[in-house]
Amino acid sequence: MKERRSLSSSERHPSHFGRGGLKLRRMKKLSVDVWSDVVCPWCAVGKRRLEAALAKFPHRADVEVVWRAFELDPTAPRVAVGDNAERIAKKYGRSRAQVEEMTAQLTRLAAIEGLDFHLDRSRSGNTFDAHRVLHLASERGLQDAVKERFFRGYMTEGEAIGEPEVLVRLAAEAGLDPEEVRATLATDRYADDVRDEERAAREMGISGVPFFVIGGKLGVSGAQPTEVLLRALEQGWASVEAATGASGGSEAAVCGPEGCG
Amino acid sequence: MKERRSLSSSERHPSHFGRGGLKLRRMKKLSVDVWSDVVCPWCAVGKRRLEAALAKFPHRADVEVVWRAFELDPTAPRVAVGDNAERIAKKYGRSRAQVEEMTAQLTRLAAIEGLDFHLDRSRSGNTFDAHRVLHLASERGLQDAVKERFFRGYMTEGEAIGEPEVLVRLAAEAGLDPEEVRATLATDRYADDVRDEERAAREMGISGVPFFVIGGKLGVSGAQPTEVLLRALEQGWASVEAATGASGGSEAAVCGPEGCG
Repeated sequence: MKERRSLSSSERHPSHFGRGGLKLRRMKKLSVDVWSDVVCPWCAVGKRRLEAALAKFPHRADVEVVWRAFELDPTAPRVAVGDNAERIAKKYGRSRAQVEEMTAQLTRLAAIEGLDFHLDRSRSGNTFDAHRVLHLASERGLQDAVKERFFRGYMTEGEAIGEPEVLVRLAAEAGLDPEEVRATLATDRYADDVRDEERAAREMGISGVPFFVIGGKLGVSGAQPTEVLLRALEQGWASVEAATGASGGSEAAVCGPEGCG
Repeated sequence: MKERRSLSSSERHPSHFGRGGLKLRRMKKLSVDVWSDVVCPWCAVGKRRLEAALAKFPHRADVEVVWRAFELDPTAPRVAVGDNAERIAKKYGRSRAQVEEMTAQLTRLAAIEGLDFHLDRSRSGNTFDAHRVLHLASERGLQDAVKERFFRGYMTEGEAIGEPEVLVRLAAEAGLDPEEVRATLATDRYADDVRDEERAAREMGISGVPFFVIGGKLGVSGAQPTEVLLRALEQGWASVEAATGASGGSEAAVCGPEGCG
């Protein structure tokens, strides 16, 4: 236990002391915000591991999961041209053999989570529209289903995830009204929401996905093992409990303007 | 596991998504900021319970405790007039018997923590100056010792904690230079620091003390049992670990602009 020097007021936890820096929730709800991209194999693995953690989490009924937008390559064309492994090797300056070895390992790890990856047939592309559809899906209470369908389309089935008509078809299979999806894609609906989430990711210093934010505060980077995610959920829940206790006003062992209770 | 609707950008966790809302620390240090007042018996109990929690905490060497200012009664005169129990009974509209019963119970609980309370002889008063001295003490690496001395002076020894010369004497016993304390009290040194901390408490919605903020984020209200404080420390530490991992850039199981690692 060390003592810190007092800091000048501007030095002192600038973000923590401000209004709302400590959020006292009154309802026991635990938010889980996951930044991810559709064309991100680790994000699909992370989704399975999160689900496994939630299955073991006693308060899972009070957990609210929202998938947030992140584009690994905002400059990607609608549909990426050419062979996937070749394109990745070229882009990241690796040999084709290196890319294939990494892909094979990722595929083995995904299989452990019950995922059937066929990344050799993946057809990458721009994912901005996919994120817009995920916003629509969220409004319709179908975000999880659509996210799942997009992942499978990209990782397993070789669907060209940047093509509007592919998004319409996959989203419809997950329960959305295809006409509504088509109408959304024909306009710029939800574009600002997607950009807001991407800006939030930048402001939090998120440089890779998946990135889990538990209870609005606790950040977990990467498709961490289920046990790590479960521990993060438990921490987040305890924090919610402490905060709701703190704001309940019935807390004992505290002195206030009305005396010591 | 429920789905949340997407919210408009202004509704969405206003404080969490902003710059620094999620603080990614690079060093594994856990801050513990405790808002308290010198004339707060539960704060003295809370200090002991925090110390007991830290004694059981494996990373206690990396914990930094800072005591933050809170005035239970900013309008108090330098030295409160009259019998303590009578004054409290009158102020809070309770009978003298009720106040004495509460005091007796608090004294029993304090004794369990090794504290020898004699609140019948307490001489309350304005604590703004005491908080200023605690800031000086913090700069001299003696905040814990001075805080401890002030608590004992008020809770056990019936020292008039609002009297500048009492503060000088007690602070000197804890190791501060009495002339420096006297010089500090003769000016308005640290007044802004005290007010900054009090404003931070208001902004966080803190209405009673002690109030512990672990890792800048997790709030614990009241002199909670040692086990609760220990659990909060563990949560805070795990959060620091997750955040330092997240910002380290060497994390696996994540896809970034440079590919999937």
